[in-house]
This record gives sequence, C-alpha cells and structure tokens, in this order.
Amino acid sequence: MSAPFAATVITLFPEAFPGTLGLSVIGRGLDRGLWTLETIDLRAFGEGPHRKVDDAPAGGGAGLVLRADVTAAAIDSIDRGGRPILYPSPRGRPFTQAMAQDWANGPGLILLCGRFEGLDERVIEARGLQEVCVGDAVLAGGEVAALLILEAVTRLLPGVLGNAESIAEESFSDGLLEHPHYTRPRTFEGRDIPEVLLSGDHAKVAAWRRAQRERLTRTRRPDLGDGPGQTD
Amino acid sequence: MSAPFAATVITLFPEAFPGTLGLSVIGRGLDRGLWTLETIDLRAFGEGPHRKVDDAPAGGGAGLVLRADVTAAAIDSIDRGGRPILYPSPRGRPFTQAMAQDWANGPGLILLCGRFEGLDERVIEARGLQEVCVGDAVLAGGEVAALLILEAVTRLLPGVLGNAESIAEESFSDGLLEHPHYTRPRTFEGRDIPEVLLSGDHAKVAAWRRAQRERLTRTRRPDLGDGPGQTD
Repeated sequence: MSAPFAATVITLFPEAFPGTLGLSVIGRGLDRGLWTLETIDLRAFGEGPHRKVDDAPAGGGAGLVLRADVTAAAIDSIDRGGRPILYPSPRGRPFTQAMAQDWANGPGLILLCGRFEGLDERVIEARGLQEVCVGDAVLAGGEVAALLILEAVTRLLPGVLGNAESIAEESFSDGLLEHPHYTRPRTFEGRDIPEVLLSGDHAKVAAWRRAQRERLTRTRRPDLGDGPGQTD
Repeated sequence: MSAPFAATVITLFPEAFPGTLGLSVIGRGLDRGLWTLETIDLRAFGEGPHRKVDDAPAGGGAGLVLRADVTAAAIDSIDRGGRPILYPSPRGRPFTQAMAQDWANGPGLILLCGRFEGLDERVIEARGLQEVCVGDAVLAGGEVAALLILEAVTRLLPGVLGNAESIAEESFSDGLLEHPHYTRPRTFEGRDIPEVLLSGDHAKVAAWRRAQRERLTRTRRPDLGDGPGQTD
C-alpha cells in the first residue's frame, strides 16, 4: 500500500479548512483516510512580536506583498515528498480536468494561499511554484481556489466517489461537455423528458447522449479540444 | 441609499456558508452590511418523510439527478428582485472578471449549488438559469464554485476593499495580467529586487510594470484580449 494522497495548505486562515472539503463524499474520503489534509499557518513564520508576513511593494503602489523569506520558511518547514507546490494566481495556467487527473495520480499537493496584492516574485522562482488560475477573475485570497482545486483532485482518488462509471462520462473527461440530465417527474410544467430516454433502447440512448455532448461542446465551448490536455 | 448587494445560495449544505466569505475584507464587508448573504436549504423542499430531492437519471446510468420540481420550488420561494440565477456547472460560460464586474453593478445574485450527477435540464430552461463554469474541471458540488464567484464579485463592491487603486491595476481589469511584485528584503537568496523599482522614478516604474504586464500576458495567456468581455 502506498501512502494516501497528501494535501498541505499554507495559509493565513487555517480555519478555512477543511471547509467545503469536509462535505459529502470528499469529507467522507478524508474521514476514511483516503487522503490527508494538513494546514500550515503562515503567520507562525512572520517576523517580530506581530508576526509580520508582508510589507509595502517595491516601486510603490497600493496594498501589501507577502515576503519571500517568510513564505520560503513556511515552505521549507514541509516535507515536500516530491509534491508540486501550487500558487493559485490570476497569472497562472488555467486549471483543467487533465491537471486534476495528473495531480490525483501523484503523491499529493502543496498549496500556497496568497493574500493582499500577491507574493514576492522571487519565492515563486526560487521554490519553483506553479501558478494556477481558477476562473479568469481576481479573488481576495487563494483559499477558495485551493479548496476548489483540492475538491476536483480528491474526487478522482480511488474509492472517493465509489462509482468509476460516473467519472468516465462527465464533462472534460474526453474533451466533451456533459449531456443534459433528466429525472422524474415525466412532465414538468409542460416539459417532457425526451422520448428516446424512455425508450429502453440503450444504444439509442447512448447515441443521443453522445450527439448532445458534441452539440453542447460545439456551441458553448468551441475552444475545447484545442486546449492543453483536453484531448488526451 | 439603494439596498446592499444581496446574495442568496440554494444548497444541500447551508453549513458551507459563509465559509471563506467570512474571512478578512469580504467577511468584514458582510459584518458591516455592505452585502448580505442568505442560504436556502434545498432539502426543505424535498418530497416525503425523507425529503427526497433527487432520483435516477432518465435513460439509465450512474448517479442521481436533482429533480426539476423540487429545485423550482426552492427557487420560487425566493424574492428574485431582478437578480440573475447562476448554476455553477462545467457546461457553463467560463467565469471572467467582466462577469464579476457586471454582477457587482447589479442588485445581487442567486446561486444554485448542484450535487450528484447534476440538475434536471428542464428547470434550467424553465427558470432561465445561467450556467457558469469556474475552471475547466469537475467538482463534487457547486458550493465551492459559489463561494469563489461571490468572493470575486463582493470584493468589487464599494467600500469592501477600501482601495480603488488596488483594483485598477490588477489582472484582467484591462485585459492584461498583473505585473510581478517585490517587497523587502532587498536581496533574497541572492536574488535582488529589480533596480528600476528602487529608483524612485515613478514614470520608469510605471513603464516597467506595463511592459511586464504585456510580456506576461503575451507569453502566458495569448488568448486574453480575444475572450468575451476581456477587452471592455
């Protein structure tokens, strides 16, 4: 048995974890030891009696920047164990399902949550942080992005979902978006479930779903299939 | 005085909120009444003694689908007040800073958090839900995406950040990524802060930062500037 997937989060807000990672199947996977979650309080590595972690930006301007030396000390306190260190940032590589699958196949992840204006560039270079962007929008801090990345990754770990079929047909798994879903009642406000789904003809259902997936992908996300990793 | 920005979240996990929205500046904005947050427990609209909210997918397959009638009842219990209803979904329009700004300018947002295989398509159509995608990856539920969208939106509300300058120069605000940041110490592990940032010449600093933003955007995100809303 190899060690379970190990997540370590460096943050000024350890109380934000496990947060949504404690819910439902992901939380049960955590309770069952299918993965582990550790938080490192960045404040503990701050300087002086106030545990200062930030300072004014060189060159002037608004806000505060997380110090390279403080952040490096927090990183260096961790047993990396071959794990990538991610830094959620709007400047990063856009997060994809292929990245989630790659990381789920590995030993775990370390995530560094930024706050304020950002992080001193030199620690990004010196410690080889991978900047990852979750949605093309700016956040107040990296915590919610870390929660999102870890949810996407940990749900792919063996045993967490308990149903491999469910993963095989979902969005992005083969470069296509997911087909529409329907369930009872048969008629809702005059809208019927498409006939084919009630036909009991498995081949026809499969063909309809495939066609829907292709149609949705073509109309909504023509960029998919071109992106890195999406066509693997 | 107009009413503050009103967020309503429909979820099977009301305990996930405010979560990361309770932290730091966003949480202080909530405490100060700059925006409001209400959760609606979807379970309360379920059927029968077990408050069932889901059922097997029409056409067969793994998992469960949230029922249209149950979800519609939860939506209809809310005073919409002209607010858009968002449904975080991998099939949705990719979330951008321009969308965050549009929504921050409006009366508020309603967010419906999916779980299981997804939501019956008919309620998406019948109630005009806007599907929004946060990162091209699949989650276990919509809660963390709702937290992320609301963080990106509420930080743009007047008074929340308290420093308009900070927003003007950040990533995506003008179709460019943010420049690198530096702070003390002047030398970190042999790496110096770029000379120009220590020159005290504001025009030179501004020109350097602009050039860095253009360089980073060109090398990391050549797609920006073409995307919807990014060049507004």
